[in-house]
Amino acid sequence: MKIFLHQKNNNIGNLQNAIESIIQTYQQSDKVGLHLFPELFLGGYPLQDLCLQKPFISQYEKSLEQIRKVANSANDNNILFGGIEYELDKSSEIIHIYNCIYHLGPKGLTSVYQKQLLPNYDIYDEKKYFTAGEKNGLIEINDFRICLFICEDMWHSSTHKTDPVKKIFDELQTQNIALDAIINLSASPFHAGKQHTRLKRGQEISTSLNAPFFYVNQIGLNDEILFDGRSFILDGSTQLQADSFREEVLEYSCKKNNLATLPVDSKTPSEIENTWENLFRANIDKEDKRLTPISESELIEIIQAQTFALNEYAKKTKMKSFLIALSGGIDSALVVAIAHLASKASAIPVEAVYMPSQYNANISYELSKQLCDNIGINLKVINLKFIHQTIKMTFKDGIGEDLTGLADENIQSRLRGNLIYARSNQTGAMVINTSNKSELAVGYSTLYGDSVGAISLLGDLYKSEVYQLARFINTHFNNIIPEEIITRPPSAELREGQKDEDSLPPYDRLDLILECLLSYQFSLDEICQLGIKQDELNHVFNLYHLAEFKRFQFCPVVKLKSKSFGFGYRNPILKELRFDY
Amino acid sequence: MKIFLHQKNNNIGNLQNAIESIIQTYQQSDKVGLHLFPELFLGGYPLQDLCLQKPFISQYEKSLEQIRKVANSANDNNILFGGIEYELDKSSEIIHIYNCIYHLGPKGLTSVYQKQLLPNYDIYDEKKYFTAGEKNGLIEINDFRICLFICEDMWHSSTHKTDPVKKIFDELQTQNIALDAIINLSASPFHAGKQHTRLKRGQEISTSLNAPFFYVNQIGLNDEILFDGRSFILDGSTQLQADSFREEVLEYSCKKNNLATLPVDSKTPSEIENTWENLFRANIDKEDKRLTPISESELIEIIQAQTFALNEYAKKTKMKSFLIALSGGIDSALVVAIAHLASKASAIPVEAVYMPSQYNANISYELSKQLCDNIGINLKVINLKFIHQTIKMTFKDGIGEDLTGLADENIQSRLRGNLIYARSNQTGAMVINTSNKSELAVGYSTLYGDSVGAISLLGDLYKSEVYQLARFINTHFNNIIPEEIITRPPSAELREGQKDEDSLPPYDRLDLILECLLSYQFSLDEICQLGIKQDELNHVFNLYHLAEFKRFQFCPVVKLKSKSFGFGYRNPILKELRFDY
Repeated sequence: MKIFLHQKNNNIGNLQNAIESIIQTYQQSDKVGLHLFPELFLGGYPLQDLCLQKPFISQYEKSLEQIRKVANSANDNNILFGGIEYELDKSSEIIHIYNCIYHLGPKGLTSVYQKQLLPNYDIYDEKKYFTAGEKNGLIEINDFRICLFICEDMWHSSTHKTDPVKKIFDELQTQNIALDAIINLSASPFHAGKQHTRLKRGQEISTSLNAPFFYVNQIGLNDEILFDGRSFILDGSTQLQADSFREEVLEYSCKKNNLATLPVDSKTPSEIENTWENLFRANIDKEDKRLTPISESELIEIIQAQTFALNEYAKKTKMKSFLIALSGGIDSALVVAIAHLASKASAIPVEAVYMPSQYNANISYELSKQLCDNIGINLKVINLKFIHQTIKMTFKDGIGEDLTGLADENIQSRLRGNLIYARSNQTGAMVINTSNKSELAVGYSTLYGDSVGAISLLGDLYKSEVYQLARFINTHFNNIIPEEIITRPPSAELREGQKDEDSLPPYDRLDLILECLLSYQFSLDEICQLGIKQDELNHVFNLYHLAEFKRFQFCPVVKLKSKSFGFGYRNPILKELRFDY
Repeated sequence: MKIFLHQKNNNIGNLQNAIESIIQTYQQSDKVGLHLFPELFLGGYPLQDLCLQKPFISQYEKSLEQIRKVANSANDNNILFGGIEYELDKSSEIIHIYNCIYHLGPKGLTSVYQKQLLPNYDIYDEKKYFTAGEKNGLIEINDFRICLFICEDMWHSSTHKTDPVKKIFDELQTQNIALDAIINLSASPFHAGKQHTRLKRGQEISTSLNAPFFYVNQIGLNDEILFDGRSFILDGSTQLQADSFREEVLEYSCKKNNLATLPVDSKTPSEIENTWENLFRANIDKEDKRLTPISESELIEIIQAQTFALNEYAKKTKMKSFLIALSGGIDSALVVAIAHLASKASAIPVEAVYMPSQYNANISYELSKQLCDNIGINLKVINLKFIHQTIKMTFKDGIGEDLTGLADENIQSRLRGNLIYARSNQTGAMVINTSNKSELAVGYSTLYGDSVGAISLLGDLYKSEVYQLARFINTHFNNIIPEEIITRPPSAELREGQKDEDSLPPYDRLDLILECLLSYQFSLDEICQLGIKQDELNHVFNLYHLAEFKRFQFCPVVKLKSKSFGFGYRNPILKELRFDY
């Protein structure tokens, strides 16, 4: 039997597009076989509350009817796609919702499997919406005995009450039957380095259940979460893999298994633990007492993810250009460089605006200009000095007190936020935020100032990783970023002679502390054992917790790592930590 | 036995304070008996990710040791308090976390009950953190047979797999035993009108299980969620109730039940459904085709909640005053009036700033001034005209294009956001946001402009409810708000002659549509059946969905209703709804 893996990018809520894909695939006759579409292909993932809303539910039920109507017993195509199964009461209120697999085939449209493992940690909220299925996903199509999984089902964790892979293994052994194919329909979020684990686990399951493994993942950007695709087929020594972040169809001729039963020496798959400590391992080099540097292959993945994210966001929101406030510092320079790389793929133009106040060094302008020259765009300049003076004067007139200190520093940053959004309103441009993960962690940014943006590109990269990525881009893309931007000491330039290191530890130490804290896996004592002084740790710990109110109002953070700020990170603003360190 | 209900306000993360309360209560000898503290009293509710963080966990385990040490077999006090039970592996990684009840008594400190029903809908994320207990909470203290519940356990829903009340009922019947007391330790969030349901359900359970019912609830504000307390005791015709939003101890002499077993005519409690449709019923008057007006008693609750929220937020963040940008419109006027009422309780001063641009009518100033006179504060004025002109000029100089249209409207609003935060930075004031639920729903606000603030006071009240509340306050508090503020047509005053109704349906119709949509319980067809025209509905539906990116970056919304924007409302920004209405 021919099996087709449709690695698709379908917008959340766009039922019509999914219906058309399904029906067209079903009705075509040049590629006949079993066609696989990702988890929740009809509907979108993650739907969040949308799946609870009646306008959506009534439309969803109609969509299923539309698909059901095309089923035809003379058609040799079979389609498996991810979708929603609603169990409603008499007054159309929800009793249960299942994350399920539909089979469109000669007998019509039927739900053939309900997801058993509902991830509900970090960015996942599936238990909020779905009820877990309880049955194994054993079905037969064209005499092929197939076992179905949905995404998380293939994983194992001691915290889950059930283990779908083991359940299937036991059923096969008890009933003395063999499989011809294992299929996993997924909407598996990207983070750098993840594919390796998927492949490894797929191989384990394929070996244990003695059948080829078909893994179909969606691609796309849904707010903060990227889906990288990289669907794959594992069959003995054969390994086929689709590209990342690109729609693609993988095709494979699957042979029926010659074995009637599982080989006698089959073993239950080793128990790769999908637990918190494995999923969110702190990237710490304990010997060198520093953050583990990102590998080159992961840096490539990160650039692919970032450029895809920018283009997707702009496409989905119909924004016309990328707009960045350039400061002469490393973060905004890196964002411009990445936007430039994105622009090469999408032709969406990049615009940079430099907005100096009286505290900005001339070199900040020169370096920004040089960067823009390197990528062939103009640098627009709005000089804040006069506006800043006017505001100070008017403020004093009205309030009776001088604007000084932090209030005066923040006003410059907020003016930039204000003006970059004026430009965005004028042109329909997408403002890209330039804060990094270290700044976000300790609140080293001005709310409504440099924290503004449609989306944060660097919010999942520590400052030391920002440097790493900038150097990597320079090496591979003609030194786009002027060297001095990378080597000059970082400064917000909001007062005379300001340097980041006046108020924060050096970034290599700061990032080590932060990774320990943000992975949740180090006690304060354990962080001290990495050579961090108590005072410094306390300072960072307090800054981190106090900055919660800023993170609360921050824009979506493009997720690049396993543990990120954003939707999966939930901590109270109002708290009173009285730890005795 | 004397039973004491300690209705407490304990900050999240403040373990030391909880430990002191528990130990002091245990060691005092003038009020000997059984002392009850709320759900998660040791730790806080909702802890969110804090309960996953090692610095917290290690401190938590030490806290339990501190409490354990005071246990003394000669002490006649018994304490039941809510807390966390960690099940850790050898390397101190989490296996399970339980939301539990600890008993501090003559035998030491033991976890005696694990919460069975973990709410995981709307604002609740308990399945993200906790594992459900499976056993009934039957314990004995001083020969009293007591049944324990934690918050949600007392409710019933067909979507839950278990029903703790029914389970206890069955156990009592099977074993032929009777109860002496039913205890529920809660951290039950406030919404207007909720207490009635708690009392009703408590009465049902008390009758069915034939024992007095003790309900202890915490008070406090945890970001968006208020806890109102109103702990109660139900014993036959006796009903005692603590105040709302105030620490208090309720004391009661509880007699041992004379019955050895449940009365033969006992009935299982009627099944009050805690389902989505009951919890989040749309407040629609289908006959009159309008939003159901808020009752007077609920208006009183709302004012209590709002004033408490303001004072709590300021207290917890150590902010020194309330700061509001007054516009001359109803929303900001109402916020000032409520801040004034809060200030009467806390003595935290209120400051108002009026920031006219060229488009503000003189009357806007006069009405703002009159309001400030009414409550005895000065009105500070920062005139934006000159700054606005300077920005337009500088922007044109730098960018080469005039600032016009929406870009020019928004710059005024963002300048206000900028300046009000400059003042906040200067004085340590807490900026109170003035957007209402209708504006939030359709995105009728400027991101980083009038959407700024530490907390949103009106974000859970539709515009028509804002009017209702303003009138109610005027009736009961000497007409604080000038009548013309209530009667003039609403306008953002960002361009000449602008009126809200130029871009939005009249608020009574808009609010009806919004409540239908935001309750999730009306399909588009059903909304049309309420007399809403298709075009108008489509317009509002699209505005609502397009505004998701603004809500994403909005400040915490003080929760006043059962279904609110904020943490419990989760919808994708990036989506493509192609419904055929």
